[in-house]
Amino acid sequence: MKTKLTVIKIGGEIINNSEQLESFLEDFSCIDQPKILVHGGGKIATALSKKLGVETRMHEGRRITTKDNLDVVTMVYAGLINKNIVASLQSKECNAIGLSGADANMITAVKRSSTPLDYGFVGDLKSVNTETIDVFLKNKITPVFSAISHDKKGQLLNTNADTIATEIAIAMSTLYETELIYCFDKKGVLMDVNDENSVVENINTEGYQQLKEQNVIHDGMLPKMENAFHALNNHVSEVMIGNTHFIKNRSEAHTLLKL
Amino acid sequence: MKTKLTVIKIGGEIINNSEQLESFLEDFSCIDQPKILVHGGGKIATALSKKLGVETRMHEGRRITTKDNLDVVTMVYAGLINKNIVASLQSKECNAIGLSGADANMITAVKRSSTPLDYGFVGDLKSVNTETIDVFLKNKITPVFSAISHDKKGQLLNTNADTIATEIAIAMSTLYETELIYCFDKKGVLMDVNDENSVVENINTEGYQQLKEQNVIHDGMLPKMENAFHALNNHVSEVMIGNTHFIKNRSEAHTLLKL
Repeated sequence: MKTKLTVIKIGGEIINNSEQLESFLEDFSCIDQPKILVHGGGKIATALSKKLGVETRMHEGRRITTKDNLDVVTMVYAGLINKNIVASLQSKECNAIGLSGADANMITAVKRSSTPLDYGFVGDLKSVNTETIDVFLKNKITPVFSAISHDKKGQLLNTNADTIATEIAIAMSTLYETELIYCFDKKGVLMDVNDENSVVENINTEGYQQLKEQNVIHDGMLPKMENAFHALNNHVSEVMIGNTHFIKNRSEAHTLLKL
Repeated sequence: MKTKLTVIKIGGEIINNSEQLESFLEDFSCIDQPKILVHGGGKIATALSKKLGVETRMHEGRRITTKDNLDVVTMVYAGLINKNIVASLQSKECNAIGLSGADANMITAVKRSSTPLDYGFVGDLKSVNTETIDVFLKNKITPVFSAISHDKKGQLLNTNADTIATEIAIAMSTLYETELIYCFDKKGVLMDVNDENSVVENINTEGYQQLKEQNVIHDGMLPKMENAFHALNNHVSEVMIGNTHFIKNRSEAHTLLKL
């Protein structure tokens, strides 16, 4: 039987709230089995860009990444946020290591085609270095990934954090029984977006089609769900979506996705 | 017989010159034996601080590190510079991994006492994690250290890059036959600071005393030399000082220090 592995992605809402982040990192550090953390940090990058007079342009929720924007996200994601998370985990006896995709050639990507829209230095994920991740996990080192990849030709690339978490979970499923968790600011998929008590607890493929038809799942939630079912269709055992509270106590409300 | 290990520290003058940096990284990637790179980056940090309106205060060449300064050096050293160096090395078939001292608990430090002068978030080095560095080297992974350490209590600390290189070289000498190289903008220790052809090729303990008495070695060179002899007195085999050219061709001018 394969060893279990937990892959968790946390979004900017959690990173921006230092109390919530600390509390989550405490819970994360208590996960006994091998684990991997992936984080974004777009809001802090946007704030730093503003201070530096670097324009932030988004298209369908994705950052158009000029050379200046790339420098900002490299500093914020791979530097400021990543190293502070690692230092905090180290204080909680979790032997974390902060990584970009360039480090130990962990994640390669290809620069997105400039047509129909030039996203600049944005990478579409190509490969995950499962072998080296496994060396780390076997040495009880916990990888903490920022959303920066590279093209193996010397170029760093800005890459979507949800996608990185998804593809790491899929790739590691050859070696581990993998669960993938997306943490964000809601308790899960909500029947009524204004009612935190309306969490849909279980969604399978059929249920997902129905929820789309009922327009319960739309806009920003759609790519997350597409990533989730992409993972489930590629050997990831379970996907969960929710806020950070169910990490410690799995009986707390969250959405569980299975095929 | 122990395996040989090369530890190289590069300063801000090299990092600021992209052509020189690329050329050095090419030479570094060609070193066959296990190797470790340590880098500074103070000048880029000072430039970013200025853009952000964060005051830079130095005392005897050392940065007084407020919370805002610490955020800047974390972004610049551990993010921007470190990840771009790693991506470049990866393109040159050197399997580099970028690290702060917090990552995998590599380098711990204690926050410097606030008397007689409060340096802020500056760390004095306490321990080097030789075991994990060795795991990396044995897996043909090349560590690239930025000059950021941590106190294992959740706090990142700004730490002198020369000191980090020196203490890594000393610590690794229990496992490897270690040579330590400081690269900067001169060909080595110069008899006449205005004459690049006046390199002192060999210095031992006695010679060092004489050069100090003759006032050939003074100011900024003194702490570098103190670090060098500290390393030699603690099982590091050889220390070299020079610009980046002798990395590829050891017959190029540089200063070799031995006890």
